[in-house]
Amino acid sequence: MIDRYARPGMSRIWGEENRLKLMLRVEEAFLEAIAEDKGIPAAELKAFKTAARGGLHEQVVALEAKSGHEVIALLSAVGARFKDQAPKLSRYLHYGLTSSDILDTALALQLREAVELLVADWEEVAARLGGLAKRYEFAWMAGRTHGVHAEPITFGVKLAGWHAEARRNLARLRRAREEASYGKLSGAVGCFSQVGPQYEARVLDALGLKPEPVATQVVPRDRHADYFHALVLSAAAVERFALEIRHLQKTEVLEAEEPFGEGQKGSSAMPHKRNPVLCENLCGLSRLIRSYESAMVENICLWHERDISHSSVERVILPDAHVALDFMLARFRKVLDGLQVYPERMKENLDRSLGLVFSQKVLLRLVDAGLSREEAYELVQRNAMRTWKTREPFLKALESDAVVAKKLSRKDLAACFDLKAYDKTVKELLARGGVA
Amino acid sequence: MIDRYARPGMSRIWGEENRLKLMLRVEEAFLEAIAEDKGIPAAELKAFKTAARGGLHEQVVALEAKSGHEVIALLSAVGARFKDQAPKLSRYLHYGLTSSDILDTALALQLREAVELLVADWEEVAARLGGLAKRYEFAWMAGRTHGVHAEPITFGVKLAGWHAEARRNLARLRRAREEASYGKLSGAVGCFSQVGPQYEARVLDALGLKPEPVATQVVPRDRHADYFHALVLSAAAVERFALEIRHLQKTEVLEAEEPFGEGQKGSSAMPHKRNPVLCENLCGLSRLIRSYESAMVENICLWHERDISHSSVERVILPDAHVALDFMLARFRKVLDGLQVYPERMKENLDRSLGLVFSQKVLLRLVDAGLSREEAYELVQRNAMRTWKTREPFLKALESDAVVAKKLSRKDLAACFDLKAYDKTVKELLARGGVA
Amino acid sequence: MIDRYARPGMSRIWGEENRLKLMLRVEEAFLEAIAEDKGIPAAELKAFKTAARGGLHEQVVALEAKSGHEVIALLSAVGARFKDQAPKLSRYLHYGLTSSDILDTALALQLREAVELLVADWEEVAARLGGLAKRYEFAWMAGRTHGVHAEPITFGVKLAGWHAEARRNLARLRRAREEASYGKLSGAVGCFSQVGPQYEARVLDALGLKPEPVATQVVPRDRHADYFHALVLSAAAVERFALEIRHLQKTEVLEAEEPFGEGQKGSSAMPHKRNPVLCENLCGLSRLIRSYESAMVENICLWHERDISHSSVERVILPDAHVALDFMLARFRKVLDGLQVYPERMKENLDRSLGLVFSQKVLLRLVDAGLSREEAYELVQRNAMRTWKTREPFLKALESDAVVAKKLSRKDLAACFDLKAYDKTVKELLARGGVA
Amino acid sequence: MIDRYARPGMSRIWGEENRLKLMLRVEEAFLEAIAEDKGIPAAELKAFKTAARGGLHEQVVALEAKSGHEVIALLSAVGARFKDQAPKLSRYLHYGLTSSDILDTALALQLREAVELLVADWEEVAARLGGLAKRYEFAWMAGRTHGVHAEPITFGVKLAGWHAEARRNLARLRRAREEASYGKLSGAVGCFSQVGPQYEARVLDALGLKPEPVATQVVPRDRHADYFHALVLSAAAVERFALEIRHLQKTEVLEAEEPFGEGQKGSSAMPHKRNPVLCENLCGLSRLIRSYESAMVENICLWHERDISHSSVERVILPDAHVALDFMLARFRKVLDGLQVYPERMKENLDRSLGLVFSQKVLLRLVDAGLSREEAYELVQRNAMRTWKTREPFLKALESDAVVAKKLSRKDLAACFDLKAYDKTVKELLARGGVA
Repeated sequence: MIDRYARPGMSRIWGEENRLKLMLRVEEAFLEAIAEDKGIPAAELKAFKTAARGGLHEQVVALEAKSGHEVIALLSAVGARFKDQAPKLSRYLHYGLTSSDILDTALALQLREAVELLVADWEEVAARLGGLAKRYEFAWMAGRTHGVHAEPITFGVKLAGWHAEARRNLARLRRAREEASYGKLSGAVGCFSQVGPQYEARVLDALGLKPEPVATQVVPRDRHADYFHALVLSAAAVERFALEIRHLQKTEVLEAEEPFGEGQKGSSAMPHKRNPVLCENLCGLSRLIRSYESAMVENICLWHERDISHSSVERVILPDAHVALDFMLARFRKVLDGLQVYPERMKENLDRSLGLVFSQKVLLRLVDAGLSREEAYELVQRNAMRTWKTREPFLKALESDAVVAKKLSRKDLAACFDLKAYDKTVKELLARGGVA
Repeated sequence: MIDRYARPGMSRIWGEENRLKLMLRVEEAFLEAIAEDKGIPAAELKAFKTAARGGLHEQVVALEAKSGHEVIALLSAVGARFKDQAPKLSRYLHYGLTSSDILDTALALQLREAVELLVADWEEVAARLGGLAKRYEFAWMAGRTHGVHAEPITFGVKLAGWHAEARRNLARLRRAREEASYGKLSGAVGCFSQVGPQYEARVLDALGLKPEPVATQVVPRDRHADYFHALVLSAAAVERFALEIRHLQKTEVLEAEEPFGEGQKGSSAMPHKRNPVLCENLCGLSRLIRSYESAMVENICLWHERDISHSSVERVILPDAHVALDFMLARFRKVLDGLQVYPERMKENLDRSLGLVFSQKVLLRLVDAGLSREEAYELVQRNAMRTWKTREPFLKALESDAVVAKKLSRKDLAACFDLKAYDKTVKELLARGGVA
Repeated sequence: MIDRYARPGMSRIWGEENRLKLMLRVEEAFLEAIAEDKGIPAAELKAFKTAARGGLHEQVVALEAKSGHEVIALLSAVGARFKDQAPKLSRYLHYGLTSSDILDTALALQLREAVELLVADWEEVAARLGGLAKRYEFAWMAGRTHGVHAEPITFGVKLAGWHAEARRNLARLRRAREEASYGKLSGAVGCFSQVGPQYEARVLDALGLKPEPVATQVVPRDRHADYFHALVLSAAAVERFALEIRHLQKTEVLEAEEPFGEGQKGSSAMPHKRNPVLCENLCGLSRLIRSYESAMVENICLWHERDISHSSVERVILPDAHVALDFMLARFRKVLDGLQVYPERMKENLDRSLGLVFSQKVLLRLVDAGLSREEAYELVQRNAMRTWKTREPFLKALESDAVVAKKLSRKDLAACFDLKAYDKTVKELLARGGVA
Repeated sequence: MIDRYARPGMSRIWGEENRLKLMLRVEEAFLEAIAEDKGIPAAELKAFKTAARGGLHEQVVALEAKSGHEVIALLSAVGARFKDQAPKLSRYLHYGLTSSDILDTALALQLREAVELLVADWEEVAARLGGLAKRYEFAWMAGRTHGVHAEPITFGVKLAGWHAEARRNLARLRRAREEASYGKLSGAVGCFSQVGPQYEARVLDALGLKPEPVATQVVPRDRHADYFHALVLSAAAVERFALEIRHLQKTEVLEAEEPFGEGQKGSSAMPHKRNPVLCENLCGLSRLIRSYESAMVENICLWHERDISHSSVERVILPDAHVALDFMLARFRKVLDGLQVYPERMKENLDRSLGLVFSQKVLLRLVDAGLSREEAYELVQRNAMRTWKTREPFLKALESDAVVAKKLSRKDLAACFDLKAYDKTVKELLARGGVA
């Protein structure tokens, strides 16, 4: 796990202690499921569930070093501890199961805990995006394509788009949660050779999981690769938003800035600098999470009923990707909380294009007035080029163009440059983006 | 597009002709939507829809070479053709729209055509997997983990697992189809600055698509990256199956072989060779499709209301990945149709492990008979090691072990080695895998 | 191959015709090597080398459809053609060789042709970068870190950095050429079982290649994966440069623009737009080439003496990556040839930061004057923050700061703001970057 | 860093303590370089170099939490400690430098330490590969292509091929070491605005590094992406070897086994199992390292004179990839040290193909005897097919074929099946692979 980026909640989930706890939770549910049939006394079961388990992790680590096998080490440690206290139960611990029954079922529980944290993270972010969208509903700014001014947009609409993307990613994470909610207790090679399907049904039901219909020795890894994609897309969304803030914070643009603490120093050399380092960090982390994906997909193609090559990959990638994404969402929330937005500067920048951003409106009015599209296009482009070169406002240029004047009155022309006309659509776009 | 792997149906979908056709389909739906409001005569609309469009592709290519802009070239070509025939319509062609309105909406239509082909491909494959699973329901073979014999399995159960994975991928493709079914006609920077949302609603409804709630200038690329993952997982599934067949065809295993044509030659040097070249090819193609994914994810982070860096990526990857996956599914269907399966050899190989594959059953019977798990484990392992070294059948070894004999009768021991006992679960697993 | 991006020279190299030609070139070299030992008449050899080979491609394609094996098809086609004309030679054609001997050796020749084209492409680009660096040696502009003004730089220095990176990539391509220059004629599984190493030596020597010391059935794929990385890094370099131009062309920055043709149209909607579409396209193509790499690395791990899973990957990726990179370099050369550079605007933007870009120089003078670094830092930062808020020029702010005034005279302060002082280092940096 | 896979030597290199130490090493070298010009007393320098630095890491972490900037935190901590002891030196600490001067130069030192460890690792592996190759020089086994028996090979030749690949990777790591040996002290945006190039030259010379000719604010990231590829290829080589061992350990093949400790348990369920888990783990780790690469390449395209998005990526990937590769090489060495090789089983498996592996030799003798290649091919294939179906040894089948008998004597035929004939080439191949 990446310490630098690890927040406590997500760290706990991926820590060894929780991992062991979840594995024991599965063993316990299994013991409960077979207790009656195998005659395990209720007192033993109770002892097993309530006994102190401190120090188990250290014991397991020590035993694993000897046996080279994690689950066997866990069983030995637990077995030793309960041998006297719960002799019958000890014999039936892990009865007829294979390691992957425990590992994969516990992993499903772990993924569910993790994804719930991510869902909560995203909801915090989405709430802020919605709030900011509302606040800047009519903060007009240049819409930009290719980095070049295109037509006006409001910062609120931009944020409503982010809000919609946040919600899409929330939906993806929830879908991923379902994909990850499959366990198995079908034993070695998945054939229920020792213990029948009825016990699997009871155990998974108790854990809130669904049975893998036809497992190999493991829950098939296409599920995990599918699950993982939701993380990659979530990271990419944050990256897209962070990238935009970096653009808005460029010296020449300066329409927004990420928060900059009092004691913070932007540069060891240049004290005046306020750099979008949080957002840059978010872009880097997304790059990282994205890169993991190919390994998760490669994991699908295990040999026969499974080899164990996926294990090292998952040991590294699953904690790291969850930790990094959790960190990203928390950091991005912080960015949004302290985001500096400069609406006057947005307007100022928009005005820099001298009205050219309204060119299409003029073009269409000329078409409405009877010109062919090609004629109108050339007429508008001619005047646009003139504005571009002479810095004469576009409206002025058009007003002094005789051909235009013949088609459009001054009032008609002026109407093309009026932002008020867009108010209704702005409101509608916010609503479409789920912003109340 | 990759000629070598291109099948006609998928080629057609991704060909320039279809692309133009779909773009015109969008323009046409838009003209219909605005016809009444803009007073476009019904006759002009009819002319537009029925007129011959032959040679349009060549014209567009020529015009694009001049203007450097594909949609403008298309509009010029169409405009020129309908100028006289439909003068009013010509003026309102593409009225208030931006290129991406057409491109992305047409892309949605194209993706839907493509994914429907893939769904049909998978259904063919799934049907064969189901049929084979049924046919080999009780073809016992070694279940293998780590490439080493584990416990018995049937080839039918293995195939039922594939069938279940095929169905998961079918579900993913259908979900991807929904994700791809979003169009936009919200104009430059997505703000409906020229044409209101009501027209978008009409157009997309006519095309069977849904409106992107808050678009930038384009439909946001997280949708396409999400869509694409379904292709990657489909390819990985075929790869996993092909990998298994390659393993089964290894000289020492030889439990199955991919079809080998009469005139086919396996090697330019060694005439006796029958190589799983089709399956190896499938593994390579999956590698290819998987590698594309990172570029599709990178495409999400466009600048501001969009740059055009995603375009070249999609131009290459979307046709190539669809063509390759369509080819993979068709080729895999062919592999299944001609698959040679050798049940006797499967049984023969299973018998090679001298009964060790039943070791766990013995272990559990010893536990039932009162041994601790640890005691039983060591007892079984001791005898297993002996069998491993002396090649004495495992049952024999156990029978001559005094400690075992004290716990289990000969009859009990023999019962551990009886495959009949698994019949019911095999049937259940097939049912769980959706095999009737 | 990607038609849209295919230039004739690179297309020819990766075309089927050239592929066949190179394969025959290897067979021919082999026949020459064994001619004396096997008694192949000189007349037959001559006939083989000079005979017309038109239509061979079509024949091979037809035969491959039947045999499912490309090299066997080639041999049949050639064999049939020379059976009467050169009967003895026909018998010894491909004598003792395996398909991969021909395929991999021909691939080495093909890669060498391709990389030579790329080297020539880069040299064209590097020459232009050098020329532009010289031309804009003293075009001062804002050096930017985090997208925020840092300290002054010249456009010439920036370009000298690109020139140095271009030269690094040239060196990498030349090194890649060496890595790709290995052939093999060691037969099936690489053991020279039929034909001794002496013939391999002769053949490869004639072709200008080196023998693979210990091949499997193929030249090991780590070589190709190593080779490929040079393409990825070349693409990333162009991407980095293109990214910079996109930044410089942003409306608010506008310090440079990629060329914009007379007839070109920037947008179907907004006639005033001049978009950096060429550079955006270059960024997308790099994304594509980068994505291929993982598949090339996966190809290394073939089974035993080789399987054929690498073949489909290479068939797609090798032509595509070469074609795309060749296109990128040519397109970038065109961008450089027509690059619009606006030095006045660069200076204007630099002045926007009101002298803050010289803050470090002031800081260090204060240290020289006896302040501790921490004191100096805080003093400078305080004034920088004031400038930032009040828009008062930094020099003015400093002059009116009593604490500063105590340490630095007006003259000393002014000297900190003089660009002339950098002239010598600028010249040195150009020289270091290899710009004459 | 990945604890589970971290070995002490590599952990130390990537630990925070070493990182700080190397950063201070750079600051120190810089102070020495400017000492004379700035009048820093020798006693202060000496104090700086010899003073205790314990607890610095904790202080830096605490300060970084406040300033959000690692290098500033380091400077503050060091400054505070030496303020009284070395007042003048304290003022000139980091004089005119930017953080990246220290970070990137220290990173170069760190990469060099790390790569030296990897080189040592590989040399250990290569030595063992050479030794094993020699030991099994004439251990004949089936050469396999497509997983199917092809022609005979020796295990020694296979290992000689690995030895050659190991040496290629050693050469790559040494080349990577050169690529990583570039530092910079050219200050913010790389223009030597505060401190001249002469100091950089002195510092880097003292550290054994070379100056980056034209840096941005950082050493350009194409160097690091180039460096990283050597790690990816090293991992892929180990993966290829591990994959082979996994194949050889399959139950039906069983020609070799990775070491299996006394106390080790192969399966929690099946005590007889000996699974190639070490080799599977190696395959997984290579998948992991390979996946990182795209992020390293993405890091190349920083904005302008640099943004900081590469930092988080490198913080995770560089330690992890080095730690994982170091672990892989050590683990693989252990695998080789305890590798179980079964030459008799190799021979036994080779004999399973009933002599078909010699088919090509027969084919060529028939060609030598005057048949056309096509005739010979069909003759051999016919007999091969018969052997394949009837299990009659290939030599017997050929002897009883009248057409063959007319062309080849019994003695000639038998000679085709004699492995002795290959002895000389086996020796030569070992020599070519660098095996003494």
